[in-house]
Amino acid sequence: MELNSYLEQQKALIDKSLDNILNQTDTVPSPIHEAMRYSVFAGGKRLRPILFIAACDAVGGNSEEILPVACALELIHTYSLIHDDLPAMDDDNLRRGKPTNHIVFGEAVAILAGDGLLTYAFEIMFKLGLKTKKPEKLFQAGLEIARGAGTQGMIGGQVIDILSENQKIDEKTLLYIHNHKTGSLITGAIKAGAILGEGSKKQIECLTRYGDNIGLAFQITDDLLDVQGDESKIGKPVGSDDKNQKATFPNIYGIESSKKMAREAIQNAEESLEMFGEEADPLRLLARYLLIRES
Amino acid sequence: MELNSYLEQQKALIDKSLDNILNQTDTVPSPIHEAMRYSVFAGGKRLRPILFIAACDAVGGNSEEILPVACALELIHTYSLIHDDLPAMDDDNLRRGKPTNHIVFGEAVAILAGDGLLTYAFEIMFKLGLKTKKPEKLFQAGLEIARGAGTQGMIGGQVIDILSENQKIDEKTLLYIHNHKTGSLITGAIKAGAILGEGSKKQIECLTRYGDNIGLAFQITDDLLDVQGDESKIGKPVGSDDKNQKATFPNIYGIESSKKMAREAIQNAEESLEMFGEEADPLRLLARYLLIRES
Repeated sequence: MELNSYLEQQKALIDKSLDNILNQTDTVPSPIHEAMRYSVFAGGKRLRPILFIAACDAVGGNSEEILPVACALELIHTYSLIHDDLPAMDDDNLRRGKPTNHIVFGEAVAILAGDGLLTYAFEIMFKLGLKTKKPEKLFQAGLEIARGAGTQGMIGGQVIDILSENQKIDEKTLLYIHNHKTGSLITGAIKAGAILGEGSKKQIECLTRYGDNIGLAFQITDDLLDVQGDESKIGKPVGSDDKNQKATFPNIYGIESSKKMAREAIQNAEESLEMFGEEADPLRLLARYLLIRES
Repeated sequence: MELNSYLEQQKALIDKSLDNILNQTDTVPSPIHEAMRYSVFAGGKRLRPILFIAACDAVGGNSEEILPVACALELIHTYSLIHDDLPAMDDDNLRRGKPTNHIVFGEAVAILAGDGLLTYAFEIMFKLGLKTKKPEKLFQAGLEIARGAGTQGMIGGQVIDILSENQKIDEKTLLYIHNHKTGSLITGAIKAGAILGEGSKKQIECLTRYGDNIGLAFQITDDLLDVQGDESKIGKPVGSDDKNQKATFPNIYGIESSKKMAREAIQNAEESLEMFGEEADPLRLLARYLLIRES
């Protein structure tokens, strides 16, 4: 299996599904649907949906019928980016090389577009519930996703991140921020995929460990790209975390130690997949990709 | 049945349940849970949960087992108030006589507290799904609530409201704003209650008509209170809509015609209940209450 073609193929699948899902909301003339589409199609890698699908496939599930949940994950991720970029939060004008949502549509519409994406994500899941044959699995998966996105997950991390700006923070707080801000929804996506694929308790445990580790590696490489990346590839100025006095892995551990931590996390992630056969090859590829990505 | 004691009793039931539900999120030390509790317990009337429960009771359902959904409705309503009050939106410093969320906790935490309440509302519903015996009804009810709260419901109304400020708007736009901004979640709550109570198609239709009419009456009386109300009872300065150049019923139709419209809507709501027996008495009381309320 070749990484790039796999990623492209999965991204195309998800983009098509997102396009369908977001077209259905365009019945009322209002700039909000335009604003929602703008950020959803602003060049995301679709990492969370791809991991979700790969986890479902790894336990032998049928990922085709749960594509709406994959889309819901991307909507939740996108809402969080729109709100993170707001003037009252990180105050970012650029995201993936494009003007952020509030720069294009104004602050009020950006806030509401985020709210709309979050609400719509759950609407999609309830709608899938009307035709699912496994309602209890969908409730479980929905719960994992909501928890991953909530105040004890992603939002919790963002709160502490915002409140720690311009302050000297310790390792524990840095890890708390990143485990929650980025890690929780990634792990939630992977668990949800494994649950909907009807994985065993043991399989779900291993995939949760995989998720925790790639979440960590993802965040470390993100911080490293901010220091050493190629601006044309990451779509924002190098050094923007420094400008915001953000807590980052390179700031606390230095560049070399951060790289080593990322490698170790990926190794742990790969070891978590030992019980799986070739169905988990996409997850193995994705782990390698997170280590070498340039954007 | 006596109105005040019914309202007090239902409010106490919902407040207790909200208190339980929001205590469970207090495990991580973070100002966000304090911010969420602050606005949830800032003196709301619990109208949406009460209507939801009354609709379930009206069709002979067991409203006790669906109390978490009643709480979810109040969390969604509260999130919408927090975001509406933000500087980028209505920029209100007072709500129900108390400083608004962003005044107390800052804008970033207020945005995230709203996000957290919205996410938690759905988490609660998924959690209930793990023990429900009627999963398909819960998915249907969740869908009604998500739609009522979404961009074709409440958020849709708020977008047009914000974008219409300081502009001369016509009747059609006024009705669109209010049907969506206030009406959609009220009707969604009532439909969800009737669905979870296993009401018949005909019953759900009648209760939907009831909901549409009391939603309209609610908004008209809200606008009238802003012009003629008692500041100490409504908790904000009289005339604040005028200050924001908001589209209101009294502005477009005049005070007397607005009062007449509210009375007619309540009459329509009462007529929609003709097929129901005394199980619908709370809904009848609530309709009268919406006409005579002072806050």
